[in-house]
Amino acid sequence: MLRRRDDELARTSDSVAVEEPLEVRVNGQAIAVTMRTPAPGEDAELALGFLHGEGIATHSGVAQVRECRAPEGDGGLAEVELRGELDPAAGWQRQFYATSSCGICGKASIDAVRAAAEPVEDGPVVRSEVLDGLPDSLRGSQRVFERTGGLHAAGIFTSSGELLVLREDVGRHNAVDKVIGRALMRELVPLSRHVLLVSGRTSFEIVQKAVLAGIPILAAVSAPSSLAVRLAEAANMTLIGFLRPGGFNVYAGAERVELS
Amino acid sequence: MLRRRDDELARTSDSVAVEEPLEVRVNGQAIAVTMRTPAPGEDAELALGFLHGEGIATHSGVAQVRECRAPEGDGGLAEVELRGELDPAAGWQRQFYATSSCGICGKASIDAVRAAAEPVEDGPVVRSEVLDGLPDSLRGSQRVFERTGGLHAAGIFTSSGELLVLREDVGRHNAVDKVIGRALMRELVPLSRHVLLVSGRTSFEIVQKAVLAGIPILAAVSAPSSLAVRLAEAANMTLIGFLRPGGFNVYAGAERVELS
Repeated sequence: MLRRRDDELARTSDSVAVEEPLEVRVNGQAIAVTMRTPAPGEDAELALGFLHGEGIATHSGVAQVRECRAPEGDGGLAEVELRGELDPAAGWQRQFYATSSCGICGKASIDAVRAAAEPVEDGPVVRSEVLDGLPDSLRGSQRVFERTGGLHAAGIFTSSGELLVLREDVGRHNAVDKVIGRALMRELVPLSRHVLLVSGRTSFEIVQKAVLAGIPILAAVSAPSSLAVRLAEAANMTLIGFLRPGGFNVYAGAERVELS
Repeated sequence: MLRRRDDELARTSDSVAVEEPLEVRVNGQAIAVTMRTPAPGEDAELALGFLHGEGIATHSGVAQVRECRAPEGDGGLAEVELRGELDPAAGWQRQFYATSSCGICGKASIDAVRAAAEPVEDGPVVRSEVLDGLPDSLRGSQRVFERTGGLHAAGIFTSSGELLVLREDVGRHNAVDKVIGRALMRELVPLSRHVLLVSGRTSFEIVQKAVLAGIPILAAVSAPSSLAVRLAEAANMTLIGFLRPGGFNVYAGAERVELS
């Protein structure tokens, strides 16, 4: 790699974030290919979290998850074995396709997620100082971030600010799938007393994954989208954005935030 | 929305970036649903750019693109009519599935893109001062960014730094699809003398879209992934990262960068 800084030029080796494809199979059937950052154990988490967020698998419905690395060592395969058959109608995405005879609209997207999951439960309440401390806690634990600048992070915290799981990935969605997958393995789902923090923006899909996992408080360092706000409202979720030193915005569910 | 800044609390209305689903149909068949930021004219660009990047449609192969807004006004449908049949084997993604009997690996991903597109042509050369000026030019044209903080941007520039097309979206990939879709409509593809600048990170998928559009120089404000670098090398593309005041990194194709 060639690095130019002002008038200086250097040939250096720079570590870049690893991105490689992962194929997810359910009962032998290919369901998805996602580009992700590989790490031992994390392919299984990613597959499990992804399938959970799509409404395809619950923890109790999964018999086994296997990670297989390709011989080249640069790609992966996660094989998920369900206790039962793979329901061809399963998954909110499929329901979504099936029910939208019109062009697809925001309301239909929200309805599909609501059909697949209960609204999140009331409580807990989180204090604003606790929220203030979350990004530093996440960042402090992100060793890799400092090196490559290329990784998104997601963390699950208790409502008093203790970090339980942190995962990183080149893909924002993957980082969320991984932390939820890990929580599923620890039998912590529904995460009804927890806060999910993401390092980037909040899209509809991130909120969807959090709703399916029963997470009451979702916070992000950057902005939410309009449909993320609408889904959070519909699902009784607290949605926080621009969580940065000295402030944050509450886009939905302000009753769970205690200002000191 | 509730805004907390230090000890002050205010109830304000904040504009958030709009995210709504768009369904893409080809010859009447649903191909994909993507969450995107709607804007008149841009659904057609997005659909066209997306299908081009997947190897499903070329400009000359498209008879018509229609945008239809759902009655609710918050979702969309883009209908693309090809001059011929939709080839069930078309699209690098499908080829990818068909040819990878192993777990899917990085090499197979690169091979699939190479099978769908020629390497980009040699030339042009871009001066480092020109590169330095691109992010400001992009940012300066991003009116919406200042307001919501939630949008990614992509811009196509000439090799002397003139901005030809700028598009924004909640999704990075969508912004790239839109600029390439617009370029297709203007019959500028292959963009063999141009620079594509993206506001965020560079993933495999972004490089893939650029390769299919014949773009020789891809620059990003943030980091590339490992597979992005490998694909750029394999496709004879110049890949620049961390393009910020006073410097940048060249990850591939340094011969197209003229340092002054």
